[in-house]
Amino acid sequence: MSQPHLDLDPPGPLPEGGLRITPLGGLGAIGRNMTVFEFGGKLLIVDCGVLFPDVEQPGVDLILPDFAPILDRLGDVQAIVLTHGHEDHIGAVPYLLAHKQDIPLVGSQFTLALVEAKLAERRIKPYTLTVVEGGRERLGPFECEFFAVNHSIPDALAVAIRTPAGLVLHTGDFKMDQLPLDGRITDLAGFARLGAEGVDLLLSDSTNAEIPGFVTPEREIGPVISSIFNKATGRVIVASFASHVHRVQQVLDAAGEHDRKVAFIGRSMVRNMGIARDLGLLRIPAGMLVSLDEATNLPPEKIVFMSTGSQGEPMSALGRMSTGDHRHITIAAGDTVVLASSLVPGNETSVYRVINQLSRAGAKVIHKDVAKVHVSGHAPAGELLYLLNVVKPSNLMPVHGEWRHLRAHARLGEESGVAPDRIVLCEDGDVVDLVDGMASVVGHVKSRYVYVDGLAIGDVGESLLTERRILGDGGFIATTVVVDSVTGKVVAGPTLSAKGFSEDPSVFDPVLPIITEALDRAAADGVTDPHQLQQVVRRVVGRWVNEAYRRRPMIVPTVVEV
Amino acid sequence: MSQPHLDLDPPGPLPEGGLRITPLGGLGAIGRNMTVFEFGGKLLIVDCGVLFPDVEQPGVDLILPDFAPILDRLGDVQAIVLTHGHEDHIGAVPYLLAHKQDIPLVGSQFTLALVEAKLAERRIKPYTLTVVEGGRERLGPFECEFFAVNHSIPDALAVAIRTPAGLVLHTGDFKMDQLPLDGRITDLAGFARLGAEGVDLLLSDSTNAEIPGFVTPEREIGPVISSIFNKATGRVIVASFASHVHRVQQVLDAAGEHDRKVAFIGRSMVRNMGIARDLGLLRIPAGMLVSLDEATNLPPEKIVFMSTGSQGEPMSALGRMSTGDHRHITIAAGDTVVLASSLVPGNETSVYRVINQLSRAGAKVIHKDVAKVHVSGHAPAGELLYLLNVVKPSNLMPVHGEWRHLRAHARLGEESGVAPDRIVLCEDGDVVDLVDGMASVVGHVKSRYVYVDGLAIGDVGESLLTERRILGDGGFIATTVVVDSVTGKVVAGPTLSAKGFSEDPSVFDPVLPIITEALDRAAADGVTDPHQLQQVVRRVVGRWVNEAYRRRPMIVPTVVEV
Repeated sequence: MSQPHLDLDPPGPLPEGGLRITPLGGLGAIGRNMTVFEFGGKLLIVDCGVLFPDVEQPGVDLILPDFAPILDRLGDVQAIVLTHGHEDHIGAVPYLLAHKQDIPLVGSQFTLALVEAKLAERRIKPYTLTVVEGGRERLGPFECEFFAVNHSIPDALAVAIRTPAGLVLHTGDFKMDQLPLDGRITDLAGFARLGAEGVDLLLSDSTNAEIPGFVTPEREIGPVISSIFNKATGRVIVASFASHVHRVQQVLDAAGEHDRKVAFIGRSMVRNMGIARDLGLLRIPAGMLVSLDEATNLPPEKIVFMSTGSQGEPMSALGRMSTGDHRHITIAAGDTVVLASSLVPGNETSVYRVINQLSRAGAKVIHKDVAKVHVSGHAPAGELLYLLNVVKPSNLMPVHGEWRHLRAHARLGEESGVAPDRIVLCEDGDVVDLVDGMASVVGHVKSRYVYVDGLAIGDVGESLLTERRILGDGGFIATTVVVDSVTGKVVAGPTLSAKGFSEDPSVFDPVLPIITEALDRAAADGVTDPHQLQQVVRRVVGRWVNEAYRRRPMIVPTVVEV
Repeated sequence: MSQPHLDLDPPGPLPEGGLRITPLGGLGAIGRNMTVFEFGGKLLIVDCGVLFPDVEQPGVDLILPDFAPILDRLGDVQAIVLTHGHEDHIGAVPYLLAHKQDIPLVGSQFTLALVEAKLAERRIKPYTLTVVEGGRERLGPFECEFFAVNHSIPDALAVAIRTPAGLVLHTGDFKMDQLPLDGRITDLAGFARLGAEGVDLLLSDSTNAEIPGFVTPEREIGPVISSIFNKATGRVIVASFASHVHRVQQVLDAAGEHDRKVAFIGRSMVRNMGIARDLGLLRIPAGMLVSLDEATNLPPEKIVFMSTGSQGEPMSALGRMSTGDHRHITIAAGDTVVLASSLVPGNETSVYRVINQLSRAGAKVIHKDVAKVHVSGHAPAGELLYLLNVVKPSNLMPVHGEWRHLRAHARLGEESGVAPDRIVLCEDGDVVDLVDGMASVVGHVKSRYVYVDGLAIGDVGESLLTERRILGDGGFIATTVVVDSVTGKVVAGPTLSAKGFSEDPSVFDPVLPIITEALDRAAADGVTDPHQLQQVVRRVVGRWVNEAYRRRPMIVPTVVEV
């Protein structure tokens, strides 16, 4: 098992007949999945997703893969294969198509419907190619074969990529529920056929590689939801991901059993469930669906609200209900709220805040810590071993995971018989060549986090985020002094103002004479350069605040010459 | 079950013969536990802890209970009863004793040893009274009886408080492991005796009230740790809470089985385990303990490091190891790291970051998601029902919990037969009177979060934290303009500087003429007041940045007159 390769240089040209694999996202963090395959001068991209920021990226809206390594080669891109419709796999497509709109998108019907809806909001009409499990498509030199995989969204696909360099299987996200709601199981038999043919490289989902065992079938959630409905005497509000069609189906089924109508709340819930119904993926009994207005006129025991906001997003439908800011729904005693969803790491504080606010308002809140109202969409260790044993890959590259997941997956590979030196443990930007049946890291290209913040893309970098963290922790103290441009003598000030430091403006009284004295001394020493004078001010204010308060606000000195 | 009472006024005088209970912390958030009991003009305090800040309190070190409601009555305080030695129960003692040093501290031997060590660092030598389970003490009008309870720290106590107003039982933190490592079980038989006598009010730990069932015995962790040691071929590093003596004992036992020496790392681990050993609570076989220097000279398969840092604290021993900054220990392939600890809500991002950094460096990291290396210290629903059924309280006041926990506990009370109107669901600052056997909320006193930030206590308030959040999310843009004090004409500037906004200073070029134009217009309109001019600048810069970037940095205008 290899170690980090960040210190490597970009690789030389790809050897004739070799396949190059460059993950631009998804390795080292869960999200922004994007892998570039290169053969014979042509490129194939698998997935193009976003990563959601955490507390380490304050103020950031989204994180994109770094397209820089392929920007001058977009003409070589044969297609973007999208394995399924989750944001961490499709969310960056609009940003890549902004560079070149006519790159074809390849995916299943539901996946393409979701990405088209997203692109329509930006008035982009993409070139698409719909594929199905069992199908094959030649995309330039890449002979692709698609396989059904079971995940927490319908219509997910794995893709096998054949080139003269060998056979590569990329699982996308998957699990192996053996009794899925739609009967569409992960095509283990198909993978076995590939295994018999000989898989040279397996790229496989690592998200749950640390977790022992097997995932509980999705259909076991149904009876739990039904028993919650059974006890509920008032309104029921269920929150889940807006793409989790099977979870929503089970809520609809429970509503039917208990003679309740259903109203969808939240823009993405309404939109996606409309798409799912149109494609025959969601069965809604006639007369069950009501509008929000109709719903609010029904007796409480006759209604279910199916809502977004399961991750504690303050602006979501559930978030607004929790703070009393929803236009139609005011939470009260007797309400039952179910968070039938995972808790994405990093969202804990927001989710528990929403749960507490709902509880405070009187609702009974049921979430995954309390009852079995969620199962994961990713294969844990037990299922990954099934896959490894059936595929018997010559080389294994764990993808989709933080380091803890990638390492655990590599360990499973070793335990199941993959030679340790054939397990390529990579992070974003590592370049892997598959040559003569052997995969190895040959270099590294820069693959920084590209931040979307408001309308700016890539304008916010790491040093800015450091500034934000300092400001967020300690606020700032700004000092302004006006000096004579010739003599350096103080003409006005110093004045101090601060934000995030103290509510009492008089705390700065002691430092004013210290600043004046330091500037006088500097003037006496002949220092007149405003930049140098700013350093003088920064130093004395920083020293004072450390001694007096043991704190480190940002010191922002401004010296203006007149 | 009652609803929030924040809108109530402070209550009138306590009726003759009544007992007043005021929780100053611990209800509505987990932490800063502190409850004040009043009878006949005298006060008794139970616990005095801190709350650790989360992302909503950026830059804050600690959160204290608000002592304001009792500050002018400290002379009436008979004692502070400390139920056990965790920071959320003892951490604020030094801050309260800073107001009056001679308030006696009452607690078990281990609890007082921990609090004395903490006070010694501030050169405070407290008055103490050591009590044991089964013991009784008269503290002014409060006749206290102490009961053993089992928790994740040794020597924890519950306290029954008898006054002419009735019998109150305060459990402190507890669970009911029936086979604890030290054989010291929660005294359910003693609680049954109280129940037979008649408990007028039960205050009981709500932390795990949402969780169904029973806690796994602590001793089941031992074999799991032992099996991890069994597989480990190199060094083993175990992190846990520095007060979890029984967890550490099981690590020592596993080390003994596998012929490994143990070194303690981290100031609080070394200090607390020294105290625990001296008091006979921790058994360390002769020759097992080695210094850090000795440890680094032993073969990797012969050593266990027992460390702090299980909550991802960047400055802790484990935190430093994860970033390669520990002076003695560099993580490498072959190392096994075990986080034998809970994951306190709010710490997820930090903990997973440490796990990923350790994994990246090559370690195999085992944590509670992956193996049974932790059990909670708090009674879940099944155990709480045992307590409720044995104590049969007339009135129930759920304590120690966020709203979701308090509500769940109230529901358990109702299910076990407490009359719904005798369940007082309170938050911090609510005032409850027990009069004629009936507990009811009679008012509310202010109980704000008191923030410790550096040397300042209470100087940082909610509006400052809002400023920090704005700065942390968007940075700021500062503009400085020098104007003539008579004409209002611009003499120098505008100059713009920003932090946390953009790495490209030229982004501000377009707004400079807009500011100048706005100031000229203001001057033409006869506006010369610097404050009004600042508002002009704030408005135009804010509008520009919103239109051009869809962002909301803080706008900090300074207009200096010369």
